[in-house]
Amino acid sequence: MTGHVVALSGGVGGAKLVHGLAMALPPEALSIIVNTGDDFRHLGLSISPDLDSVVYALAGLSDPIRGWGRREETWTFMKALAGLGAPDWFQLGDGDLAMHVERSRRLAEGVPLSEVTRHLCRALGIATRVLPMSDDPVCTQVMTGDGWLDFQEYFVHRQCQPAVSQFRFAGAAAARAQPDALAALGRHDLRAIIICPSNPFVSIEPILAVPGIRAAIEHTTAPVIAVTPIINGKAIKGPAAKMMTELGLPVSAAAVAQRYAGLIDGFIIEDTDPIPDADAGITFFAAATLMRNDEDRLRLAHAVLGAADALRARERFA
Amino acid sequence: MTGHVVALSGGVGGAKLVHGLAMALPPEALSIIVNTGDDFRHLGLSISPDLDSVVYALAGLSDPIRGWGRREETWTFMKALAGLGAPDWFQLGDGDLAMHVERSRRLAEGVPLSEVTRHLCRALGIATRVLPMSDDPVCTQVMTGDGWLDFQEYFVHRQCQPAVSQFRFAGAAAARAQPDALAALGRHDLRAIIICPSNPFVSIEPILAVPGIRAAIEHTTAPVIAVTPIINGKAIKGPAAKMMTELGLPVSAAAVAQRYAGLIDGFIIEDTDPIPDADAGITFFAAATLMRNDEDRLRLAHAVLGAADALRARERFA
Repeated sequence: MTGHVVALSGGVGGAKLVHGLAMALPPEALSIIVNTGDDFRHLGLSISPDLDSVVYALAGLSDPIRGWGRREETWTFMKALAGLGAPDWFQLGDGDLAMHVERSRRLAEGVPLSEVTRHLCRALGIATRVLPMSDDPVCTQVMTGDGWLDFQEYFVHRQCQPAVSQFRFAGAAAARAQPDALAALGRHDLRAIIICPSNPFVSIEPILAVPGIRAAIEHTTAPVIAVTPIINGKAIKGPAAKMMTELGLPVSAAAVAQRYAGLIDGFIIEDTDPIPDADAGITFFAAATLMRNDEDRLRLAHAVLGAADALRARERFA
Repeated sequence: MTGHVVALSGGVGGAKLVHGLAMALPPEALSIIVNTGDDFRHLGLSISPDLDSVVYALAGLSDPIRGWGRREETWTFMKALAGLGAPDWFQLGDGDLAMHVERSRRLAEGVPLSEVTRHLCRALGIATRVLPMSDDPVCTQVMTGDGWLDFQEYFVHRQCQPAVSQFRFAGAAAARAQPDALAALGRHDLRAIIICPSNPFVSIEPILAVPGIRAAIEHTTAPVIAVTPIINGKAIKGPAAKMMTELGLPVSAAAVAQRYAGLIDGFIIEDTDPIPDADAGITFFAAATLMRNDEDRLRLAHAVLGAADALRARERFA
């Protein structure tokens, strides 16, 4: 099966499947659209956590134990920063800082984020196209008992403790979808659009909120497949399950699939979870979705691509 | 002997005597005016090499082996930066970066450099007043066969290889002397003004180029004492001797003293160097000027203060 594959990804969990897809496909057959709603300015630096998670995963630089940031990291900067009485609630490893400093330097020169990202990828030997959802700033915010909080304030500084009731994506309405991302979604040779196992509320929906992206996915003739971020009623990482509870949703793969109704054709649930009844035109597939190592990533990537190809074949011969 | 002491300092060599003076005097009896002509923007960060050398010396954070930067430093950032293809000719240690990031953050908020410096000093437990010569930007430039070069381009990137023929201090004419620095130079209880063993051309003369500072030193009634940066025809560190040769000056303590003629009353030369004839109203004193450890720094500080007090006593009873 040939054709182009587009994946939508947030940070750590999504980045693992992105890495699997990059192992499964030639670089020219894959475009990754990454959430930038988590991006923020901190200590005067422009930080793009999800882009970096994807880049580190593709470059083989992710820390396998900590689950975020770079491997072989040191923390001298943070210790010195704390000694200066400066804000130290956001952990910045010494090697990780190089990404933020270099990105900030180029953005300050007026280079768009997508071009900065392309340059960083090239330097790190990544041939796959990694595209921010937009070159314009979008800021994910969560509504809590303390009012609207910027995402990193909620996620890192408050460690996801406040209960959330709503989300909004400040700047999204005025943001322009990154042109290559939009072009990739509109390709005539599109094999599949894959929604990675990322948090639907704060990783995928910010991407969908950028004008043109949701519409492109709704109107594509290619199969659209999402992978569950929920296994056995729990999120593998991050606040997805806690958010679902706070929003009054069942904490289940089926509820995530329902969230994507109208957008997706297929949904991958964990092998050991019960398969929901087909609903709202969504076909469910079971696979081993927990990615502990590179083999898991590659196997899941093949399972997702296989599901997409099966959906397309079914439609063609229906 | 009581009264206030003001020291003018560049980086490493000057910072050692500053540290000696800080050991010899109570904090309220000492103000340090530091060269900021070396300051520059690099990778989007505001870097103040001489201020940091003074601050690290006073905080006991200087690296004793390397001779610059912080002790117990790591270099993960530089390695990662090089991996991104970013400019890596200026070495930034991981801990050192905390100073640059925090300084840049506060300057970007509109806080003046002197206030940023006060805050950094307070955080590091430094009670002595460390004052940039100006809160306005001044850029030391050297004339070479390749034209005018910014100081760090010459000093670090080109490793002082081009021969120099002239110096200029871009921005100095319009810069305002830092008010506390000017006030310290004009105090009625001034015990001495000390010109540290720094490079006269690129560490001390930028300070003197800021309007008001040279005049305040010329008109003070307190003794003004300089300490030689040249021992036995060699600079202890840095390009001072090379510059003197290129400028057609003899490489000697006497030539440095001559450069300060009209400004200084006393000049400290190394014990083992021949004492020049008193000239241009300058009295020469001999001392052990090489500072290998804290004891050397304190002993030299006492020698310099003693010379100043001797000059004042002589004048009083002349």
